[in-house]
Amino acid sequence: MDWPNLIKTASARVTPYIRQTPVVTFETRTVTQPVTLKLEQLQHAGSFKTRGAFNTLLGTEPPAAGLVAASGGNHGAAVAYAAQRLGFPARVYVPEIAGPAKISLIRACGADLQVVPGAYSNALEQAKAWEEKTGAMQIHAYDAEATVAGQGSCFVEWEQQGLNADTVLIAVGGGGLIAGALGWFQGRCKIVAVEPERCATLHAALSASAPVNVEVSGVAANALGAQKIGTICFDLAQSTGIESVLVSDAAITQAQRRLWQDLKQVVEPAGAAALAAVLSGAYTPEPDERLAVLVCGGNIASDPLA
Amino acid sequence: MDWPNLIKTASARVTPYIRQTPVVTFETRTVTQPVTLKLEQLQHAGSFKTRGAFNTLLGTEPPAAGLVAASGGNHGAAVAYAAQRLGFPARVYVPEIAGPAKISLIRACGADLQVVPGAYSNALEQAKAWEEKTGAMQIHAYDAEATVAGQGSCFVEWEQQGLNADTVLIAVGGGGLIAGALGWFQGRCKIVAVEPERCATLHAALSASAPVNVEVSGVAANALGAQKIGTICFDLAQSTGIESVLVSDAAITQAQRRLWQDLKQVVEPAGAAALAAVLSGAYTPEPDERLAVLVCGGNIASDPLA
Repeated sequence: MDWPNLIKTASARVTPYIRQTPVVTFETRTVTQPVTLKLEQLQHAGSFKTRGAFNTLLGTEPPAAGLVAASGGNHGAAVAYAAQRLGFPARVYVPEIAGPAKISLIRACGADLQVVPGAYSNALEQAKAWEEKTGAMQIHAYDAEATVAGQGSCFVEWEQQGLNADTVLIAVGGGGLIAGALGWFQGRCKIVAVEPERCATLHAALSASAPVNVEVSGVAANALGAQKIGTICFDLAQSTGIESVLVSDAAITQAQRRLWQDLKQVVEPAGAAALAAVLSGAYTPEPDERLAVLVCGGNIASDPLA
Repeated sequence: MDWPNLIKTASARVTPYIRQTPVVTFETRTVTQPVTLKLEQLQHAGSFKTRGAFNTLLGTEPPAAGLVAASGGNHGAAVAYAAQRLGFPARVYVPEIAGPAKISLIRACGADLQVVPGAYSNALEQAKAWEEKTGAMQIHAYDAEATVAGQGSCFVEWEQQGLNADTVLIAVGGGGLIAGALGWFQGRCKIVAVEPERCATLHAALSASAPVNVEVSGVAANALGAQKIGTICFDLAQSTGIESVLVSDAAITQAQRRLWQDLKQVVEPAGAAALAAVLSGAYTPEPDERLAVLVCGGNIASDPLA
């Protein structure tokens, strides 16, 4: 797979539709070196997932029945947002436990929203039934070539903005975003995969030398809680090399607080996980190592202006 | 007064101490053109006021008694932060109505915090008594040359970041920030002063052809509630030209909500006021007018992570 070319093509395709997200230097009191942050939570619909959704939709001819997704969060919002911008109908199934904030976000993105009693699996079941009944298209949240290439556009953009780093730290759920980084950088930067201790799918897969099912829970589970790492991510991680670190829920919560106190950024737990690895010492850099951290999402559960 | 040179000097002086704040394009549904935002609320201590505080402290030899300020908000935090970084003692008087969030911010910046019963005037009285007793130095929040030149560094930085605008919209309280813009741009951009209808000190001064006292109230009064426009600002506004527009509290609150929903930025009412002028139509641009808005502060009263 020629990932650099796929990602370059994706970047050109999605650039007119996505927001170029800003970069800022974050000086911390707990590490000696400043950290460069890319604030991807400022992306349309609040996370990087909008890139993959646009790349998928722009590279295909969606059926007349439009799109369907099952999601309690960022993926559903991204699909809804991209579908609305491009004029396709989208139906998004969410479990009622998704809560009012995420439900209203997806609704605000113009989707035909279906709130399903029970758990996520019920929403997924109904989404599959809708797909079979109508021929609507599902976009995979992380383990599809077009999704990964779209997420990779984030790193093309970052290099165009002058990224100057030895190491890039990225939170991992299903692995779509970090697969885009591995595919784009091809070893030019060290890539560090950061996972919550309670959502350690890549970590478990690297130990087992194959993707395995993992129990997921904790503060970031609604965004990083894929039960098994994607095969695209796993294969890229094995072939190009990766360092895997784990962070506690307490470290994530503490990083969220620091991002608000010191940088006025309100992010969801998943968005603070990669920075948590630096602030907590879970990742220990060399003295002159230039660190970059991707802040991946900001769709917190509660309304900060309420 | 050679403002461009003063501001250029200030910029060189403060740059090692302040954060280069990011710039992002904000596409809105209610105006046809995108708006460029500079997110100055990401500045250390949460507002542009840190620039003026550093420029003042770096350009003088503070007395052994250190600094004193009376403030319920951004100015007090900026003075405390800059004093801490440069190793000077600072005593900050706040009225108890400042509330726990601002009080803890100022305390986190390392100041000797004095919470004073009653209103702001009581805090100011005690600060003046402390100044007289100890010889501590007060930094004026807006009507001092070093303060204005420091705030002007924000616009030097923005031009270095590639600012490409016909018009820059800026919220006005005492006028220190917009005076820095007027002093720096010297007519190269149109400057629009945005004030809440209930804190319209510059608007009233332009009508009366002199600074006059104004009753202040409303959602942004704790940040834009100077009772009289500064003379430096007023003189620059008269000599270089300015457009003055007013926004309602409802428009400010609505802009705050849009900044959160569409850009994941939680800002205080003052920080959303300039954007409110665009979103509400209080300022109506020409069809191809390139708009830039400074988002000036993010120290909201409540804790968004609570």
